[in-house]
Amino acid sequence: MNKPVVVRRVELPPQDVVAALEKYGVSTVHEAQGRTGLLASYMRPIYPGAAIAGPAVTVSLPPGDNLMVHVAVEVCTPGSVLVIAPTSPCTDAYFGELLATSARAHGVKGLIIDAGCRDVRPMTEMKFPVWSKCISSQGTVKATLGSVNIPIMCANALVDPGDVIVADDDGIVVVRRADVREVAAASDQRIRKEEVTREKLARGELGLDIYSLRAKIKELGLEYK
Amino acid sequence: MNKPVVVRRVELPPQDVVAALEKYGVSTVHEAQGRTGLLASYMRPIYPGAAIAGPAVTVSLPPGDNLMVHVAVEVCTPGSVLVIAPTSPCTDAYFGELLATSARAHGVKGLIIDAGCRDVRPMTEMKFPVWSKCISSQGTVKATLGSVNIPIMCANALVDPGDVIVADDDGIVVVRRADVREVAAASDQRIRKEEVTREKLARGELGLDIYSLRAKIKELGLEYK
Amino acid sequence: MNKPVVVRRVELPPQDVVAALEKYGVSTVHEAQGRTGLLASYMRPIYPGAAIAGPAVTVSLPPGDNLMVHVAVEVCTPGSVLVIAPTSPCTDAYFGELLATSARAHGVKGLIIDAGCRDVRPMTEMKFPVWSKCISSQGTVKATLGSVNIPIMCANALVDPGDVIVADDDGIVVVRRADVREVAAASDQRIRKEEVTREKLARGELGLDIYSLRAKIKELGLEYK
Amino acid sequence: MNKPVVVRRVELPPQDVVAALEKYGVSTVHEAQGRTGLLASYMRPIYPGAAIAGPAVTVSLPPGDNLMVHVAVEVCTPGSVLVIAPTSPCTDAYFGELLATSARAHGVKGLIIDAGCRDVRPMTEMKFPVWSKCISSQGTVKATLGSVNIPIMCANALVDPGDVIVADDDGIVVVRRADVREVAAASDQRIRKEEVTREKLARGELGLDIYSLRAKIKELGLEYK
Amino acid sequence: MNKPVVVRRVELPPQDVVAALEKYGVSTVHEAQGRTGLLASYMRPIYPGAAIAGPAVTVSLPPGDNLMVHVAVEVCTPGSVLVIAPTSPCTDAYFGELLATSARAHGVKGLIIDAGCRDVRPMTEMKFPVWSKCISSQGTVKATLGSVNIPIMCANALVDPGDVIVADDDGIVVVRRADVREVAAASDQRIRKEEVTREKLARGELGLDIYSLRAKIKELGLEYK
Amino acid sequence: MNKPVVVRRVELPPQDVVAALEKYGVSTVHEAQGRTGLLASYMRPIYPGAAIAGPAVTVSLPPGDNLMVHVAVEVCTPGSVLVIAPTSPCTDAYFGELLATSARAHGVKGLIIDAGCRDVRPMTEMKFPVWSKCISSQGTVKATLGSVNIPIMCANALVDPGDVIVADDDGIVVVRRADVREVAAASDQRIRKEEVTREKLARGELGLDIYSLRAKIKELGLEYK
Repeated sequence: MNKPVVVRRVELPPQDVVAALEKYGVSTVHEAQGRTGLLASYMRPIYPGAAIAGPAVTVSLPPGDNLMVHVAVEVCTPGSVLVIAPTSPCTDAYFGELLATSARAHGVKGLIIDAGCRDVRPMTEMKFPVWSKCISSQGTVKATLGSVNIPIMCANALVDPGDVIVADDDGIVVVRRADVREVAAASDQRIRKEEVTREKLARGELGLDIYSLRAKIKELGLEYK
Repeated sequence: MNKPVVVRRVELPPQDVVAALEKYGVSTVHEAQGRTGLLASYMRPIYPGAAIAGPAVTVSLPPGDNLMVHVAVEVCTPGSVLVIAPTSPCTDAYFGELLATSARAHGVKGLIIDAGCRDVRPMTEMKFPVWSKCISSQGTVKATLGSVNIPIMCANALVDPGDVIVADDDGIVVVRRADVREVAAASDQRIRKEEVTREKLARGELGLDIYSLRAKIKELGLEYK
Repeated sequence: MNKPVVVRRVELPPQDVVAALEKYGVSTVHEAQGRTGLLASYMRPIYPGAAIAGPAVTVSLPPGDNLMVHVAVEVCTPGSVLVIAPTSPCTDAYFGELLATSARAHGVKGLIIDAGCRDVRPMTEMKFPVWSKCISSQGTVKATLGSVNIPIMCANALVDPGDVIVADDDGIVVVRRADVREVAAASDQRIRKEEVTREKLARGELGLDIYSLRAKIKELGLEYK
Repeated sequence: MNKPVVVRRVELPPQDVVAALEKYGVSTVHEAQGRTGLLASYMRPIYPGAAIAGPAVTVSLPPGDNLMVHVAVEVCTPGSVLVIAPTSPCTDAYFGELLATSARAHGVKGLIIDAGCRDVRPMTEMKFPVWSKCISSQGTVKATLGSVNIPIMCANALVDPGDVIVADDDGIVVVRRADVREVAAASDQRIRKEEVTREKLARGELGLDIYSLRAKIKELGLEYK
Repeated sequence: MNKPVVVRRVELPPQDVVAALEKYGVSTVHEAQGRTGLLASYMRPIYPGAAIAGPAVTVSLPPGDNLMVHVAVEVCTPGSVLVIAPTSPCTDAYFGELLATSARAHGVKGLIIDAGCRDVRPMTEMKFPVWSKCISSQGTVKATLGSVNIPIMCANALVDPGDVIVADDDGIVVVRRADVREVAAASDQRIRKEEVTREKLARGELGLDIYSLRAKIKELGLEYK
Repeated sequence: MNKPVVVRRVELPPQDVVAALEKYGVSTVHEAQGRTGLLASYMRPIYPGAAIAGPAVTVSLPPGDNLMVHVAVEVCTPGSVLVIAPTSPCTDAYFGELLATSARAHGVKGLIIDAGCRDVRPMTEMKFPVWSKCISSQGTVKATLGSVNIPIMCANALVDPGDVIVADDDGIVVVRRADVREVAAASDQRIRKEEVTREKLARGELGLDIYSLRAKIKELGLEYK
């Protein structure tokens, strides 16, 4: 019941919404969809400042074997985000500068990998963003099958192919493809509201007043000395 | 015996001494006060190069609830350093760009938090320094009380309100308010002494000679081959 | 059978080969020598972009005592890389700016330490590269002997004095002194081959074709949908 | 879209199949369903020797608040296994002897909790089995809502209410309710096959012969010296 | 300001109260004193079932050096609990069967150590309980001073000499000497109240009713389906 | 230069010395050979009380593939201890009850594995001792070659085939085959000396007097209050 399979075509989310989610960023999107979909915080970007969003091409593969990454690149389309998870914990580098070159040639925007990567300097120079569990030079073989574009568990989160991955310095969040419009709208609302709040806070107004918290802390019995 | 309380006024350390400690930096101050007061090394700055010192406004709060951070901002004064510790281990983000904006408007120099933070990019751009246990987009609610300006345990160190926090790329050290003059004087001595040593070392003199260690290693029986 | 000892002279690898290994970098060298010799991935550089290679001067020392680092600097020669491992796990800072100044004056190219370091900012400014297990201000004493230039276990790898250490953003690899020519030659071959591959990949050719993997995945039974 | 909710009735798996899965144990069941469904290996039993299986009553709750555990006990039925996951990482003890007493009175067979538990000795004496992330005396409040019998992510695995949890000294595995018959049948086959193998191995026959591996290692090129 | 010192006499808590706290156990005592004083949950007993309480004899010592443990044994009195913390993180074994024999001869009830211990089997056989951070055969030297009976930070908790340590399978809690009567009284109340609750729960009554939580969950808006 | 190979014959250490080392135990042997050879303390026995010694049959294998364990069993001889290390970090279970049955039939005394194992209960019941990094039901394939009886790095220690492994509740230590007589003699001396010390300590004599430490602590300047 776990036959290796590659699903070539996945329904994609609308591009304008993906672009909007990229602009909003991980923390806003995560709040906007009710604090769900966050990947584990051990996933860190290899350089600061990267921020992307795109539909996931998911890869499930064995520990220490990156044959399926090569398979996956072929089914990527411009804007894809590769999301790779080994079937048991592994710190090997499945991905480096050569695969980044290949992925970029096929329009891939970046990589999320619950394992290791290498060639950090060249990938930083070519601005190919990677969020990984660790950095390691330990490479892999190309010997065993896995699957592409099946639902996977990556860094404690469930990712379905075609779900939108949003990633930046704060981490990574996954948005279900069916929810993207709703989440983008909620993010937009949140951003607007925060802009007003930010201005007030910058002027020195207090969160206690802006969020009307004074009555609450009084009722809860906070004592001032 | 754990009633939520906010202590509004805390005796502050003299500003000139705080400024001196900021200049000396964490490693010198830590040595100068007899290798005490260091916070755990898992606390890391969100961007390199920040270096601050200031009296602690301490916050003890429940896991996943940042109501008390808003309460704390009101009692901060120009130069304060916020020091936040949850009552049980938590990786949620209690603090992000909006609170940083608010804190800055009230003169807060930076944040030490034994939990998570988010909005790393905007806080890096506005140069609001944060030392945290982790980075996570997982936000909090505003529902439960805690206390402000009581003694807290933060990243394995005891911090009393008004103690001076010194933080830079090497980590974080706390100096008891009563000890600041003495520690600053000892730091100054150390810095002067190190300057002389640095020049000698730069000329190629050996620590073995500068620190008169040759007799010691001979006595201890070190064998050269 | 563990008498403290300092071995003054160690046979050095040829300089041109060391320079070549530095240019190839950790990931290439690691592959070229059959995926051996990698240090644990918890070892991280204190700033991005550093890349060095050089013969190891090894130091085995007790937890919390850096007397032997001073002893080791004296036996370093231009191009040496210091490799330090405590005899039991320790996060103390054995090394900071003063020792970096001393080491540089004696031609040391950088430090690998399976423990802590401090003075991250000044060492970053003077571009003295350090790969360490952690950053901590907690200093050490100068009281107990250890050994210099004996075989040590550092971050899970065996390092013999005179072995070549290659370190960059991807991590650290050790090359046995006797193998350096062979490994450099294999690295060179690998680099040349990768250059051809990189160009093909950049043009959009797929790894599946370049590495002739299509037959294999068919034989293994991969199903496309 | 995350309203707190309690689903009272969940379709249950057939009892005879549950009993069979309990007998087969985690490692057999995990293999039999194609190596899927394992919870993270940091989950450990509080005492050795316990082995249970039963349909999951799932609980999603906030960090540090066990109000929903009390809510959940009411909807448990004889044979239920409680599966509890906080919405952010937490090591507090949501569960101890009193709740074990209550749970047992309602027929609950045991607890899986991706957080802490306490009262280890009394729960060991009453033989109420718990698999937890840690042991801690740090209790919780009863202040905030969560949900019961919704899909949750527990120790890196997705658990739907009514899925069968199998837990023993090897860990914990979840079997989708729809798959239980098929998995039990595959487990049974596996057990029978292993019995034959075990007898052969006990007589000294080698896995190399029993699994016909000699041809394979020859073909792969293994050299004997 | 950190001169090594041994304080010979420490005011002791009343023995009857210590005996009562031992009987109540860690989880009850921790709750009774308002959820404070817990040591970190990484501290684990070397065998199950041990439960002790007694006034702390505190030891602060350097990493890898157990000279001060020998000094401390001399100032122990019948009923003492040794509490040992190194000044920087260390996993070495400061304590084994010989020191356990010595400590027992002087009436010591057990050991709390934020580092390693060894001789687990003989100490289990002689029923000398130890709670430690880890188990390791790596021994220590006897070369450097530390202090006995000064305030120390052990496993994230502040322990003053003469404070009562309560330790069992659930972990370790420290009770300030000044608070012992009050905490014992509160523990006793808690135990009595729990006994009534336990009987009700055992009969099948629900926590929802016993703690009057139904109104609360209704008010908070919990929806049943 | 890493061709898979099986070395059939390894020179064995004398049996009487192995038996003596087993009796002395890990902590004594580790001290007797100058505090070297300890495996990392994360390696834990699956049940308490096991204590073995024997010559290592070493196995180097890929992550997630136990083909070579079957190969290794064939070259084991009565008294062998299997020592298994994957070439990159892996938590999969390479070993369970069936392999334990096979290993026992060929005289293997126990297993050291720097990865996972499963079937904890049956292996506990048949008293087949295993020291592992973790427990997991996640099994492996039988597809790729590795090597048997080559030098390996296991849990941070170098193990040569034929070296003696000593393992008990305190952990694991490796003794070079060439050193076994010397180490056994030193262990014996240590045991005899400790026996005398133990009797003195049991009578209440202090380590301070037995080890003549009073002069030292006076000279180092310890102050008593």
